Formats: sequence, structure tokens, C-alpha cells
Amino acid sequence: MKQARPLIVRALSNETVERPPVWFMRQAGRYLPEYRALRAEHSFLTMCHSPELAAEVTLQPLRRYPFDAGIVFSDILLPLECMGAELEYVPGTGPIIRNPVRTAADVAALKPFDPLRDLPSPMETIRICTQEADVPILGFAGAPFTMACYMIDGQGSRNWPETKRMMFGQPKVFQALLDRLADAVGDHLQAQVDAGAVGVQLFDTWAGALSPDDFRRWALPASRRALARVSGAPRMFFTKDSAPFLPWLKALEADAYALDWRVDIGAARKLLGDVAVQGNMDPMALHAPHDEIRRRVRKIIAAAGPKGHIFNLGHGLTPDIDPQAVGVAVDEVCGWSWS
Amino acid sequence: MKQARPLIVRALSNETVERPPVWFMRQAGRYLPEYRALRAEHSFLTMCHSPELAAEVTLQPLRRYPFDAGIVFSDILLPLECMGAELEYVPGTGPIIRNPVRTAADVAALKPFDPLRDLPSPMETIRICTQEADVPILGFAGAPFTMACYMIDGQGSRNWPETKRMMFGQPKVFQALLDRLADAVGDHLQAQVDAGAVGVQLFDTWAGALSPDDFRRWALPASRRALARVSGAPRMFFTKDSAPFLPWLKALEADAYALDWRVDIGAARKLLGDVAVQGNMDPMALHAPHDEIRRRVRKIIAAAGPKGHIFNLGHGLTPDIDPQAVGVAVDEVCGWSWS
Repeated sequence: MKQARPLIVRALSNETVERPPVWFMRQAGRYLPEYRALRAEHSFLTMCHSPELAAEVTLQPLRRYPFDAGIVFSDILLPLECMGAELEYVPGTGPIIRNPVRTAADVAALKPFDPLRDLPSPMETIRICTQEADVPILGFAGAPFTMACYMIDGQGSRNWPETKRMMFGQPKVFQALLDRLADAVGDHLQAQVDAGAVGVQLFDTWAGALSPDDFRRWALPASRRALARVSGAPRMFFTKDSAPFLPWLKALEADAYALDWRVDIGAARKLLGDVAVQGNMDPMALHAPHDEIRRRVRKIIAAAGPKGHIFNLGHGLTPDIDPQAVGVAVDEVCGWSWS
Repeated sequence: MKQARPLIVRALSNETVERPPVWFMRQAGRYLPEYRALRAEHSFLTMCHSPELAAEVTLQPLRRYPFDAGIVFSDILLPLECMGAELEYVPGTGPIIRNPVRTAADVAALKPFDPLRDLPSPMETIRICTQEADVPILGFAGAPFTMACYMIDGQGSRNWPETKRMMFGQPKVFQALLDRLADAVGDHLQAQVDAGAVGVQLFDTWAGALSPDDFRRWALPASRRALARVSGAPRMFFTKDSAPFLPWLKALEADAYALDWRVDIGAARKLLGDVAVQGNMDPMALHAPHDEIRRRVRKIIAAAGPKGHIFNLGHGLTPDIDPQAVGVAVDEVCGWSWS
């Protein structure tokens, strides 16, 4: 039996809660031996596109830990494939797009994206997991700027030179691409809400490569456009390197802001206004001795306060993390009481 | 004939100047064909350790552009070699240390570092360049935290897991290593000043991997200790991801703060107090059309104001940059007039 209004929904709605709900970015992933066992048999893309496999991976961490939500196993780049990108995951390199977008003609040639027709697996995975799990399921998508980075540079990069070359040199083409991507990922989030996701997170992982001016001109309005297409569930916005952008994030009109670990979560709330926040432990702090993990968990909860805080890491769990350390952190959150 | 008080020294001393002086991090490097020609004949470490070659590389950009300073061609990791690190530059991977520091015994086994005895080449390079160049020469070193990252993890990393494992799990060992490194790099900076460097920059490139609490506990006091050993020339402090740390940087008591491009330089000055600032153009903006480069240069100068501003990039020049674009940016700075 599920609660009518689960803890995570109440916290995402900026209500005062008895303890922060907890989930971890990449809680379904390579740090778990049971994930690696499944991954040894199937390619990453096969797992993403098979609802039964994706549901199994989504449920794996929920069997181990008392997380307050699952997050659908999927990948932010899948919609790009549907729009025409020749996407491949190269071991050791990560995602590669063989036909990067560089011109106005490339943008015009992108296919329209209808999530239910073109990418049904995340929604089906959400349906399966909502039935099978004791906790609600979250959906997600990549933010337009971050998606554009991969689409233009064609692979992960520290500096995203081709993306910036287009942004500075062909601003109209870049804007047209952001608009296309904003509508695509907005529709993708809405489809996940319609399939039963109780909340959705937009990941602007690489927006931190931008100067404050460029963030406000490009990444922010594009994410705002994507989020504005979504209703019916709280919408979270994440960016790494969030510190420089805190004074402007509220213009996104998200329901919750997910912070990386390079900001004090209490100080960040003052800049964000009266809105829910998520975060923000250094994922590498899971390498600390267990009592130090617990101390850091408590410090973050105390700094965030009892209203509208969802405990999470400041970035995704990495494969080198000991599953036992994850259990210690989750246990400490679940043992907290504001009353 | 050199001026008694060069423009860069006046700006570093936080004086009001007629236009900002300009130099670029990694202005001597792979974006220049004449650098690549020399590099084709010599290994990177050979070039660093040969004052004649290092001087030639230091002087190359000064022949092309009216930079207001040269910066000695060297590498932040060289003192680690003197302290016992088995350092190697692996093409495509970057620096590798074959015997990373992981225990108290490893720290205790580090050799004392006497820059004049163990690493004379940067000082000799500074002497040669000070004679040959029409502009003054700057020195530099890596900050203790950033040096510790390489020493412990043994190679470049996004997350520095082993460094953080030691920091969280063996805080006394980590502190002992930071102390050793602080004294070593402080002495290295002083030796460069004594050799004729008119200013020195401490690069805490990876301090941005730390939470604000951890930055204040570890990286900041260690850099403060290093800078406190240096007198006789202005001392600059650089960190990437500087935004979260701006409220605390003044505790370093540096003479100038070099900012990355993810902060507004005018807003940063308000947090830093009455001290010189350096920066802060996005290096990737050098991929922009030339008129857009000029517009961005002017915007940064106007935001920084006439007092104590040294124009620079927010991070090092990358090999993909067109040398002509560098010329355009430098020309725009040199054409500015505050009067």
C-alpha cells in the first residue's frame, strides 16, 4: 500500500516534513554488483530500451536501501537518437554522436520527437516500477543546453568548443536548436508524468561551462521553456557548478532546485527564495569513514532545515563507491527526526 | 629600456591604471605553431628542464603579441619530482605519478625541496627572459591542495577519489602532506621572485572539487601558508570554480585574485574587497567571431573598472585556439583607455 501523499511529494511541494526524503542520482548503476551482472549480458542501450531490464535496474537499489523514491533507468541522450543522432556508447569514451549538428541545415533536418511513439520504454518502465515498488518513481530528461552540447560537440568534453563556436558564431542556429530540444525534453518529461512519475528532474549538467551572462541568455530560457511544458508533478532542476547561477535560478520557475556540493545549502536557500531544495553531499564523501559520512549527512540536513528539503548527493554516484557506504548515508537520513 | 614600474606591477599593486595590462594563462603553448615545432624535437620535461629551450618558449608569444608580461615556461608538477615522485608525461593521458602518496610513511619519505639546488631551471629561465624580453616576467607554482591531488591520485581526475579518501579518512596524514607542499611551493615562488619575477601566481586549479567547508578547512589555509612565505613581489591566487569561495578568499591575503569566467568580475570585486583582480574571459570565447571577441573584452574591462585589473582568460589557452583570435583580444585590451 502506498501513501496518498508520499514523503518525497510533500518535500518537493516545499512542505515541512518530519525528515527529509532521500534518493541518490545514479542510485541505479555501476556501483551495484547486481547492476554489473546484468550489464555484463546486455549493452547499455539495450538495457535502456527494454522496459523489463530497465525496470529491474530501477528496482535494484530499492531492494537494498530504504530510498524514498526510485528513478527510472534511462539516459538523457535517448531522445537525440530519435531526432536523428547516430548515438553510440564507446567503452572508455562514453557517448559518441557520429553525425554532430553544426549548421542550420543540420538543425532543420532533425526529426520531430514524439515520446510515446519514438521512445516508449521509459514510460513503460515507470509503469512497471510504479506497480512493483513500494515507493514512487521519478522521471528525468537532459536540459536543452546540455543536450545541445552532446549534439554539437558529438562527445563529452571539458570545454565544449564546437558548442561554443556555434553559440558565439551562429546564435540563430543555436537558438533554433535549443528551441527544438526544449520542446522535445519538455514533452518527454510530461509523458513520464502521464505514465506515473511523481516528479521529474531536468539535468543541466554542463550549464556550468557557461559564464553567468551566457547562462542567462541561453541555458536558462531554454530550460524554462522545457519546464513550462510540464504540469501535474513537481519539476526539479539540477545543474553542476550551481553557485554562480543561484541568484537567477528562480526565473526557471522550477518546483525544486538540486544543488551540487560546492555550495552551502543553507546559504543557497536564501538566494533561491521559498522553494524546495535537493542535495547536496559530495559523492566522494562516501569514501569517508562511516562516522564521518553520518556527520556530513546530519550537517547538510541541519543546514537545509525542515521545509522542502530532499536529501541527495551533489552529483551522481560513481562506480567506485562501496555499496555499504550508500547504506550508511541513507540510514542516517532515515533516522533523522525534526519533531 | 624597461619602465621603472611596469604597467602590470602597478595593476597588481591595485593602482588605478590607464588601461588593464594583459597576459594569458598558457600564452606559451600548443596553440602556437612555433611551440609545436620545438616540441616535436624535445620532450615536455626536457623543455622544462632546459633554461634555453624554456626561455625560447616563454619568449615566443612575446614576439607575436604586445603582452604586458611573460610567464616562465615550466610546470606545476616539477617540484613533486624533486620530492620523490616518479613523474611521467604520457601522451593523451597527461601527467602520471607512478608512486602515489597514500600513507603516513609515504609522506615522511618525501625528500626536502630546495628550489635552487633541486630545480634551478625556472629561475635560470626567468633570468634569461628578464634580460631578453621588453616586458617583465611572472613566475608560478601549483597550490598545495592541487599538488596533493596529483601526488595522491597519481594522475588527473574529475573526482580525485584517493585524495578525498585520504582527506576524510587520514586527516593528519593529509595535513602533513599539505604542510610539506605549502613550504615547498612557497619557497619555489620566493626563488622565482629572487630570480627576477615581478609577480608570482599560485594555481589552485582543483580546489573547486571541494565543498565550501572543505575548501576553508584544507585548501585555503595551505595556500595561505605558501603565500605567506613570499615577499618582494605581488602574489596572485587562481582557482577555477572560484564562485563558491569568493566570500572567503581574502583570508589568503594574496595581492590579486585571478577569477575563472563563471563569475561576473564586477560582482566578484564587491565580495573580495579592495584588492586587485585578474581575468576573466571564457577561453572558448576566442572561438567567437572577431567583433564578438572585442565586445566581450570591452565588457569585462568595463565591469572590472580602472583600479587594479589585469586582463586575462578565466583559464589557460587551449591548443585548439586560432593564434589570430589571441591577437584580436590582446589588441582590444591594448586599445582601451580609461582616461
